[in-house]
Amino acid sequence: MDSQTVGILGGGQLGRMIVEAAHRLNIKTVILENGDQAPAKQINALDDHIDGSFNDPKAIAELAAKCDVLTVEIEHVDTDALVEVQKATGIKIFPSPETISLIKDKYLQKEHLIKNGIAVAESCSVESSAASLEEVGAKYGFPYMLKSRTMAYDGRGNFVVKDKSYIPEALKVLDDRPLYAEKWAPFSKELAVMVVRSIDGQVYSYPTVETIHQNNICHTVFAPARVNDTVQKKAQILADNAVKSFPGAGIFGVEMFLLQNGDLLVNEIAPRPHNSGHYTIDACVTSQFEAHVRAITGLPMPKNFTCLSTPSTQAIMLNVLGGDEQNGEFKMCKRALETPHASVYLYGKTTRPGRKMGHINIVSQSMTDCERRLHYIEGTTNSIPLEEQYTTDSIPGTSSKPLVGVIMGSDSDLPVMSLGCNILKQFNVPFEVTIVSAHRTPQRMAKYAIDAPKRGLKCIIAGAGGAAHLPGMVAAMTPLPVIGVPVKGSTLDGVDSLHSIVQMPRGIPVATVAINNATNAALLAITILGAGDPNTCLQWKFI
Amino acid sequence: MDSQTVGILGGGQLGRMIVEAAHRLNIKTVILENGDQAPAKQINALDDHIDGSFNDPKAIAELAAKCDVLTVEIEHVDTDALVEVQKATGIKIFPSPETISLIKDKYLQKEHLIKNGIAVAESCSVESSAASLEEVGAKYGFPYMLKSRTMAYDGRGNFVVKDKSYIPEALKVLDDRPLYAEKWAPFSKELAVMVVRSIDGQVYSYPTVETIHQNNICHTVFAPARVNDTVQKKAQILADNAVKSFPGAGIFGVEMFLLQNGDLLVNEIAPRPHNSGHYTIDACVTSQFEAHVRAITGLPMPKNFTCLSTPSTQAIMLNVLGGDEQNGEFKMCKRALETPHASVYLYGKTTRPGRKMGHINIVSQSMTDCERRLHYIEGTTNSIPLEEQYTTDSIPGTSSKPLVGVIMGSDSDLPVMSLGCNILKQFNVPFEVTIVSAHRTPQRMAKYAIDAPKRGLKCIIAGAGGAAHLPGMVAAMTPLPVIGVPVKGSTLDGVDSLHSIVQMPRGIPVATVAINNATNAALLAITILGAGDPNTCLQWKFI
Repeated sequence: MDSQTVGILGGGQLGRMIVEAAHRLNIKTVILENGDQAPAKQINALDDHIDGSFNDPKAIAELAAKCDVLTVEIEHVDTDALVEVQKATGIKIFPSPETISLIKDKYLQKEHLIKNGIAVAESCSVESSAASLEEVGAKYGFPYMLKSRTMAYDGRGNFVVKDKSYIPEALKVLDDRPLYAEKWAPFSKELAVMVVRSIDGQVYSYPTVETIHQNNICHTVFAPARVNDTVQKKAQILADNAVKSFPGAGIFGVEMFLLQNGDLLVNEIAPRPHNSGHYTIDACVTSQFEAHVRAITGLPMPKNFTCLSTPSTQAIMLNVLGGDEQNGEFKMCKRALETPHASVYLYGKTTRPGRKMGHINIVSQSMTDCERRLHYIEGTTNSIPLEEQYTTDSIPGTSSKPLVGVIMGSDSDLPVMSLGCNILKQFNVPFEVTIVSAHRTPQRMAKYAIDAPKRGLKCIIAGAGGAAHLPGMVAAMTPLPVIGVPVKGSTLDGVDSLHSIVQMPRGIPVATVAINNATNAALLAITILGAGDPNTCLQWKFI
Repeated sequence: MDSQTVGILGGGQLGRMIVEAAHRLNIKTVILENGDQAPAKQINALDDHIDGSFNDPKAIAELAAKCDVLTVEIEHVDTDALVEVQKATGIKIFPSPETISLIKDKYLQKEHLIKNGIAVAESCSVESSAASLEEVGAKYGFPYMLKSRTMAYDGRGNFVVKDKSYIPEALKVLDDRPLYAEKWAPFSKELAVMVVRSIDGQVYSYPTVETIHQNNICHTVFAPARVNDTVQKKAQILADNAVKSFPGAGIFGVEMFLLQNGDLLVNEIAPRPHNSGHYTIDACVTSQFEAHVRAITGLPMPKNFTCLSTPSTQAIMLNVLGGDEQNGEFKMCKRALETPHASVYLYGKTTRPGRKMGHINIVSQSMTDCERRLHYIEGTTNSIPLEEQYTTDSIPGTSSKPLVGVIMGSDSDLPVMSLGCNILKQFNVPFEVTIVSAHRTPQRMAKYAIDAPKRGLKCIIAGAGGAAHLPGMVAAMTPLPVIGVPVKGSTLDGVDSLHSIVQMPRGIPVATVAINNATNAALLAITILGAGDPNTCLQWKFI
């Protein structure tokens, strides 16, 4: 695609997935990482990689000599060396070394965000002394967060100072590290947004997701977040603004707290692909990794290229962490492979307990469905969740290979509709009966209407009362003939249902029968089936 | 995931995409191919690959020594050598050498299919002589197809004998190759189905697709095929039966002709991933490549794992062929990157005119939408197809940041509904007006209803006549308040619309106003907006 070669500082799973995305665009990558078995190096035989540390200026210079643009998959790199090599060679570096420097020291990051008007938790710099920590307690109250300014990730470098008695332990755990303190944020959820920025400064945000942490490590991600869409939008705007405050192109992960009062605070920012964006591989057309590659090489980034694959796409990402026994985590992966609509991504690492070994993406059109699949994968249930089934098997006479689908908006319509079912039974017409509501289950109704011919149905009988939208809506979405039965409600004598069903616009007919006359509907269905084959046409009219 | 190492005979793009899928499952692969720059080798640094031909018994033995299971990405391999190495070492080979032998000689393949009752075009073996070819002409009539039995792919090895005068050229073009002749099949479309078979003999078919060839090379693939779903189902069944007739696990591509009379004939079978299945990377949860890896390594293959990502997923695959100028084809790729919902896959090959350099997948919920995107990518239009826009900009007073959406089922409702728009204008309420029909554009309606809050709308006014399903259906799918305006039709005085809108079931209210009273609907919308902010509540009632 492009003759640029991209050098990546770091060769872990994020680098690996950047490399995969780059391969698909014929963009060459070279990895700087210790050893030759790093996850990113395993899948790239195009060039000799650099064996060394991303904190070694010499190795960085060696990498730069082979590349047109440098990027990072981890922020804890030697940024002075990056500045040096950029001065010496003019090589492009995204995100800019300045941005990486500001972000990798979490206290500088926080000061930068405050200066740019981004809402963050209140915080202050502290010294590594009991007196200083006590002073913070007096100012913020307990509990508060004590955090290392540098080299902190996956919860390492954070300590909750629950009360004064925890101060000695805090000092021991975060011994010799530069520290800052943060006022406790009483959050109700943790949210995150991936934002990608083009070289010309445009930002594009992915959907707002919800992250669930266990033992300070990301456990699952729900996309989109299970919050109302105003909160989702607010989180995207906050993330956009936060990313706009830093110079340079590339993808950023913005982690946020949703407070109990509905406010949002930025927790921290990663200047690279992020665990909370792994769901994008399956739930979006363009993954966070491809978006990053496009951003740093100046490839096109059209409007909406970061949106979900469809407006109703829902996803759950589940991290695969190293188990206590060697490869114990692969049991869960095997269950994921047994689950339709789940995909497994492993990183080629050797097992260590708690290590991020891979992740699993589950994608569906409903979060409930994703959750059912998650429960199977995690082993909390042993029944494999298959696709939704429509057939109401409890109705006697229904068939597994139905030709006629009898549907109704509510089970209160059953006494009327069962008269039609009896007729179908008498004529040995295979049928199914199920409840589908235009108003209560509109997506299920759409799927039923669209799938009906694929499942072999030849005709649908739909009964409904009141505003009675079911027959007309099903007719709008299926090529099959639809017969409408107006069911009489407790008011208006069924005239309302009759009008709602019969007064369809030009183009979308519903074959309407008399109020409550499901018998006629079934007979009409039989004539329709018979019309397809004159020899077997059932001459019930003349019996 | 699995400690098995898979050896792949052939290192082209199909091998490359198998390797990519295997990496994601931590399954090691070793490639047998000449040179060290083969597409599949480029992305695999896990092992030393074999430099040699997939027709060299020594190289095959060398590959087998490093692997637990062998597979192919091309059928023109030395199958005797595969049989030998299997005898000598017991290594698993999928598909079985027997299957590859039967398939790589296209005439043996055809005989095998006939023997197993699979519908194919009538054909006969011929000698490379004018007399023999004339005899075929007398038997089948002209035109007929003359085909090489072996080493035929991408149209090479086929010759259309239009009439007797073409015989000398046919003999020249297919000089020295073993031949057979095929009766002309007057097809209306070419279809294809990918089928994957597990080690225990289960077959799973992907959707039926339609392939469009140009100059004998696959140009585009439409998934699912633009034929009715009975034909789609028949094609899947034919493909399943064809694949069941061959022993061994793995993925198979089954190409078929749909005749003008509706019959289906198998054209040919590939015992490997196939160009017509590239769309599965984006349109299905599990790609053909991952399905193949799962099949040959005995990993789980759940029911439905080969279905489309959603029931309404539609896709187009466009091949990227080498242009006449070096890298000329990348112009098209750049246009694809400018197109939302398109993904580019390049294979790391050097350009040769007509060579398969990569492919582009376009995925959407409607084929019309995919086609619009295709036209942009191919350069037949220069307007980038973005997401559907709802706003009817032609209505004066509409805003780009609307708070109220005014919708109606048909433009015949506009005279009534515009009275409401005038009120909104008077009160400086930003609004939009558009036509959305519950019956004519149900998917657009669903998207409108679902997206409305995301786009900042606070309230929807929906007008409709007759069966009037629009307000109720939108109410069923949006969390926003919906105001319904019954529009009076030419019959029943609007009572039908009133009943259809007002008689909603418990749980899904529509705020219904009087027949034709859009003025009241607008005023109601204003009170709803005002209710959110009592200070700015517009006290129109008391003006």
